[in-house]
Amino acid sequence: MKVAIIGYGVVGSGVYDILKENRGGIERRCGQSVDVKYVLDIRDFPDHPEREIFVKDFDVVLSDPEVGIVVETMGGVRFAYDYTKRALEAGKTVITSNKELVARYGHEFFEIAERHGCRYLFEASVGGGIPIIRPLARCLAANEIESVTGIINGTTNYILTKMYRGGQSFDDALRKAQELGYAEKDPAADVDGADVCRKIAILASMVLGKRVDCADIPTKGIRGISTADVEWAERAGCSVKLLGRAVFRNGRAGVSVEPAMVQTAGNAHPLGNIWDVYNGILVEGNMVGRVMFYGRGAGKLPTASAVVGDIVDVVRQPGHSGEFSWTGASDTTFDPAELESEFFVRVKETALPAAEKAFADIKLLAKKDGEAGFFTPVMSETEINKRLSEIDGVINKMRIYR
Amino acid sequence: MKVAIIGYGVVGSGVYDILKENRGGIERRCGQSVDVKYVLDIRDFPDHPEREIFVKDFDVVLSDPEVGIVVETMGGVRFAYDYTKRALEAGKTVITSNKELVARYGHEFFEIAERHGCRYLFEASVGGGIPIIRPLARCLAANEIESVTGIINGTTNYILTKMYRGGQSFDDALRKAQELGYAEKDPAADVDGADVCRKIAILASMVLGKRVDCADIPTKGIRGISTADVEWAERAGCSVKLLGRAVFRNGRAGVSVEPAMVQTAGNAHPLGNIWDVYNGILVEGNMVGRVMFYGRGAGKLPTASAVVGDIVDVVRQPGHSGEFSWTGASDTTFDPAELESEFFVRVKETALPAAEKAFADIKLLAKKDGEAGFFTPVMSETEINKRLSEIDGVINKMRIYR
Repeated sequence: MKVAIIGYGVVGSGVYDILKENRGGIERRCGQSVDVKYVLDIRDFPDHPEREIFVKDFDVVLSDPEVGIVVETMGGVRFAYDYTKRALEAGKTVITSNKELVARYGHEFFEIAERHGCRYLFEASVGGGIPIIRPLARCLAANEIESVTGIINGTTNYILTKMYRGGQSFDDALRKAQELGYAEKDPAADVDGADVCRKIAILASMVLGKRVDCADIPTKGIRGISTADVEWAERAGCSVKLLGRAVFRNGRAGVSVEPAMVQTAGNAHPLGNIWDVYNGILVEGNMVGRVMFYGRGAGKLPTASAVVGDIVDVVRQPGHSGEFSWTGASDTTFDPAELESEFFVRVKETALPAAEKAFADIKLLAKKDGEAGFFTPVMSETEINKRLSEIDGVINKMRIYR
Repeated sequence: MKVAIIGYGVVGSGVYDILKENRGGIERRCGQSVDVKYVLDIRDFPDHPEREIFVKDFDVVLSDPEVGIVVETMGGVRFAYDYTKRALEAGKTVITSNKELVARYGHEFFEIAERHGCRYLFEASVGGGIPIIRPLARCLAANEIESVTGIINGTTNYILTKMYRGGQSFDDALRKAQELGYAEKDPAADVDGADVCRKIAILASMVLGKRVDCADIPTKGIRGISTADVEWAERAGCSVKLLGRAVFRNGRAGVSVEPAMVQTAGNAHPLGNIWDVYNGILVEGNMVGRVMFYGRGAGKLPTASAVVGDIVDVVRQPGHSGEFSWTGASDTTFDPAELESEFFVRVKETALPAAEKAFADIKLLAKKDGEAGFFTPVMSETEINKRLSEIDGVINKMRIYR
């Protein structure tokens, strides 16, 4: 099998390295050798040991009938969309780590792949090296999936870990993450939640079999999380985590991206002790109950490991398989504010009597520095918002996961 | 597709229930209906709504060409072996939750299945509902697997949790587990490690592609774990867990079953916070790093969910697939005592000077009740044993996982 790698950045070069390094095992598992015939990149790599395989013209890849698999690790949308479409139309399977492209155009690509007898695979687009796409689609096939909840952005989890454990401010923790290369110079896609939004859109679309549009997902990042929020969470036996969550009901998904308080102490929630750049994805099935997948959600080799896993899968089983796909249907979501849970609310201490009146049954956690923190009864966010609107002095509220 | 369920106990009846309950989704994923045509059990179920499908004669199942899949949920070895063999020889795929049978005779059954164009699948035999067989074989195919370490027995994890959190003795915790139905009346297979031994043998055999015989796995259960051991572990920021572990080197596996101390506090080990009846399986791959799978390792519906996952897989992709199989090769292991790690050692306080002499570099944790606990440098168990043999007053030692 001949492979072309489109985009020789972090992930693309990782794919190249794994295909070299683990060559023997991969060949054994595939029943044939897997060779990189081309690498396409606009940059030059004059010192690369195989510089002769580098090309700049996509038509070289496209017109070579020997190339059966195109690995798209360019990122971005414009060129990646065009190359992916043309490769699939030429009957070449495309394997990608490009979550933005999968979330936006996955439904189109599945349809094109089906028409041309090839596949569009994207295990690497969510959770880096953690196997999640296949387990969700295949291994849990006996279940109706009730929800998927994930810590699926390593950068923000690192920042929140530093705030929790190191007592750092958001700004200091972000700077540290940038120094270590975990956060980009412009950290917006991570800290404002767009990255999580794309990934949870992919997982929700796959479970539903119908496209969940990022535009339909209320998305809140962690820029507004203060040291005080983190301290209140700790007092409550929780930590603050940025969660992408999809709940499935009656053929629709209620999907959200928001910081929440997850129980860390005692009888911890499975996502409560996922720290640093690690990711965790919790799936609830109606038969299996809670199952969680944990590992490095990003990084060169973990992500490339997922791409190469897809390659092995395709080479072993070249036939088309529709189980990972979704249609371009619209109107597939419901408002996640309808979902009920316990909430934690921070108010000014002076607002406590009004809060007690509005909720009838609150559990006061503590008073501190002129503030009070309490747990609400289980209710929808819509209902919470209505009641909080009657109170003067509300500082913050978060969902609680136990 | 017509299915026969052999053995209508906890798991077998769970398979029946899931095929009814999630019928629509399963049919959609399979592209056809999946019906239970026979249930074989020696007992009578006169009140069962479908009592007409119950049979007592295996030949009825065997001679019905409509039956493509036999679900073996009998347990035990004698009848299960015979029925499995005859079903495979008749070209019927067998799906099992019977870990004893898989560990002992898997290699024979794979070979028979291959000859007769059918399959022998066993996702439910390890980790209950947790997807582990497929992810390990397929999704991590880009990796050379370096080790597999699991908390894969819910009963003992429950007992150790009660000892750790509730301060209970082993005997009291075992009694509680029996009351709740987590432990059997004769708890030997769980508490003495035989169950873990079978499961880690299955995982090790699959990774290696060659049979790892339970007889080659040094197996130690938790009967010798005292409240004092658990307290010392807690002092060290750890908890005691019963681990099945396989380390792969040069085409061989070093496999062990033993209680160990796993870091629970601070920068916890991924298996450190797996509590109660939950299971966790940590896989280390040379590219992906650490990946962990978590969920209910036992119970009617979780285990049946894994069986039905195998059914869906077979119906979707009926062709033979050798990737989950192993040969009957012998001499596939090395002595796990060769494996190096840090150890925790409890000695009588009077033995501390001798310990300091024997190890040159120990980290004393504490002295308490006439005892001392210390951490050794990283070394093999063989080396540790040699040095400890020079000391009078050694109480216990355990490997440390951080």
